[in-house]
Amino acid sequence: MKKNAIYAQSGGVTAVINASAAGVINACRDYAHQIGTLYAGENGILGVLTEDLIDTTHEPQALIDGLRYTPSGAFGSCRYKLKSLEHNRREYERLIEVFSAYNIGYFFYNGGNDSADTCLKVSQLANELGYPITAVHIPKTIDNDLVITDNCPGFGSVAKYVATSVKEAGYDLESMYKTSTKVFILEVMGRNAGWIAAACGLASTHTSEPPHIILFPEIPFDEDRFIEAVKYAVDNYGYCVIAVSEGVKDKNGIELSSSQTTVDDFGHQQLGGVAPILAAIIKKRLGVKYHWAVADYLQRSARHIAAATDVEQAYVCGYRGVEFALEGHNAVMASIKRVSQEPYLWDIEAVDLNKVANHEKFMPEDFISKDGFHITAKCRDYLLPLIGGEDFPPFKNGLPDYVRLKKNRVIKKLVQFEVTR
Amino acid sequence: MKKNAIYAQSGGVTAVINASAAGVINACRDYAHQIGTLYAGENGILGVLTEDLIDTTHEPQALIDGLRYTPSGAFGSCRYKLKSLEHNRREYERLIEVFSAYNIGYFFYNGGNDSADTCLKVSQLANELGYPITAVHIPKTIDNDLVITDNCPGFGSVAKYVATSVKEAGYDLESMYKTSTKVFILEVMGRNAGWIAAACGLASTHTSEPPHIILFPEIPFDEDRFIEAVKYAVDNYGYCVIAVSEGVKDKNGIELSSSQTTVDDFGHQQLGGVAPILAAIIKKRLGVKYHWAVADYLQRSARHIAAATDVEQAYVCGYRGVEFALEGHNAVMASIKRVSQEPYLWDIEAVDLNKVANHEKFMPEDFISKDGFHITAKCRDYLLPLIGGEDFPPFKNGLPDYVRLKKNRVIKKLVQFEVTR
Repeated sequence: MKKNAIYAQSGGVTAVINASAAGVINACRDYAHQIGTLYAGENGILGVLTEDLIDTTHEPQALIDGLRYTPSGAFGSCRYKLKSLEHNRREYERLIEVFSAYNIGYFFYNGGNDSADTCLKVSQLANELGYPITAVHIPKTIDNDLVITDNCPGFGSVAKYVATSVKEAGYDLESMYKTSTKVFILEVMGRNAGWIAAACGLASTHTSEPPHIILFPEIPFDEDRFIEAVKYAVDNYGYCVIAVSEGVKDKNGIELSSSQTTVDDFGHQQLGGVAPILAAIIKKRLGVKYHWAVADYLQRSARHIAAATDVEQAYVCGYRGVEFALEGHNAVMASIKRVSQEPYLWDIEAVDLNKVANHEKFMPEDFISKDGFHITAKCRDYLLPLIGGEDFPPFKNGLPDYVRLKKNRVIKKLVQFEVTR
Repeated sequence: MKKNAIYAQSGGVTAVINASAAGVINACRDYAHQIGTLYAGENGILGVLTEDLIDTTHEPQALIDGLRYTPSGAFGSCRYKLKSLEHNRREYERLIEVFSAYNIGYFFYNGGNDSADTCLKVSQLANELGYPITAVHIPKTIDNDLVITDNCPGFGSVAKYVATSVKEAGYDLESMYKTSTKVFILEVMGRNAGWIAAACGLASTHTSEPPHIILFPEIPFDEDRFIEAVKYAVDNYGYCVIAVSEGVKDKNGIELSSSQTTVDDFGHQQLGGVAPILAAIIKKRLGVKYHWAVADYLQRSARHIAAATDVEQAYVCGYRGVEFALEGHNAVMASIKRVSQEPYLWDIEAVDLNKVANHEKFMPEDFISKDGFHITAKCRDYLLPLIGGEDFPPFKNGLPDYVRLKKNRVIKKLVQFEVTR
């Protein structure tokens, strides 16, 4: 008898995680002779635990095609990391109970580092608990911090968005700095790894071009050297554009943004990013006019300027992930392999999840310039193909025409399960 | 003998002010039998005062065509408002000196409210000083606050950007609110007029859809009512997306953001927008997880998602502005007239600058919903055609392929002039 499958989205969503979902769904439809019903967990693994399952069979093909160009997690995602078997045996037993009740043979988990770990544990512990299941991890993270993959689906589109934004804002400053703003700061995501900040560097093909300074979480922030670099740009180019990673830290490893919880005149707590803090330092030390922007969620949901390469890789990771499962791979990640640099060619391969889970890929030393304020040519070569190509969504009435799924839930057949965290 | 012309860009730049420049330049080229050399002031009116003039004749047609899809002010812009004749007679005399030295008969000034005023003054005072000149104002402002024009070139593209961004971020929250962020705040530009904030409302076609709350500078901020509305959205839709105008004010007319100049743990001054202040209020009163973004310059330079209607109107305002001058109109603005609502049809007409200068167009009362937190159907009908159509720039290596002009400066022939402010 054919086994059924469960797909779930995990962690912070991206502009292209739904393209992976479309890949998984289409593969399951194409391989219907080998695989039964594909269920999706509503709100990720939580929906699996609580038996809030969506029967993807009822989603029309047009909506699945629409997923390819719709940002966010169409089935709902969650921030929920399964603990170890010792610490929460109850949850693993429940998962097996659900898998068993729905004759699940395949588990496709679409996420970042935490979900790679969960996917691996599900595979290992299902085995231990006597209900073997094939678990495949579909990579997704704007942070680009998974190891053993050329890059992570979701990253290329953020990279394209931030590089475009910094280029556009750079043009803005260039035309106004004589009488107006001389320093502009764009804060981008990246708590530990500086990949997104690095991508801003793609906007610059010459030292005179914005961004003039990039601050990475990997490089301890040195206020004096920073101010010197800002002054150099203002003195030599007339203005200075700075891209800063939200997770930039001081020499003690303390995030600069952690100093921001202050109280304003009304007694309101001030909660903000690192950009306004840098602005304040610049104002105090150099006294020049500044502006700052915090892209926040805009960057990870900006499907309107997704990279075609990223969309395609996200889709194919999902599709090949299903094929890997059917080929008998278990506890693997659908990983992107760079086959050739120019032209950029890539393939998807199955890599052992043991090698992926709980590792984090930081910017290599030779990707950051000697002064710590920019990217090297080697980094540029690595990043450039990832923002390649445009894949605009359809527009209707001036706005992207994103889809919403029908999300028909199955009728529950198990006793209720309380998620206690 | 044919008279020459000067074009200058003024004030905050936009995604499409260069499209107006292209319109002016192409019209001057098309009417070369009636009009001589077109000069551009480098950095706006400042370049006219200091005789830093660019001879646009030397710009290849391909670059002029590229201006149509390049954001920012290609000739440089400035924030510099000419004072009245009594207060700075010296500057007006200098302008006339430059106009006379270059045989200028036409002055095309591309800007917002301040430049409408300057353009009018130049026309009036040139006359008084015995050097008659034809002055035409080409409208430009993301703020959409000029009167007697259907809208202002630059606004439609910002509107499209913010509505798209809020829609995308809304999808993001919708997929994650169960375990993550419940409130998202997007701060947009608009110090006095709430047009840009209003445009965010286009993303919502039902009260359940983001943005759930819009804060306008025209509506005094009431913390209790605001918190009630946030709570309602969180309770009923699970999450709340807020679009806030940077200029939102309390009941005494004090900008909320003016309370933000505080000092952090390091003794650094905190300088930020209104979004983190609202976040702090929500955190304190409701204790839910929030995120916020400040789009700042990204919104006004986002040519990658400009509205086709806006680009075309900007171009045609520039082109028709030249024609108005040649038809003998003086001290006029090239104004957009809405000829029909559905389909959206428009025309350009010459309106008396006396009726435009020093007036500011705020959101009408019937464009804001009764509760003060959203736009009305009437407002939606007004705004929707302005974000219509896509006009993506060409891309190269994954990024928009914007142009930079050659900007050949003329050799100065006058004595140096010091701008003393």
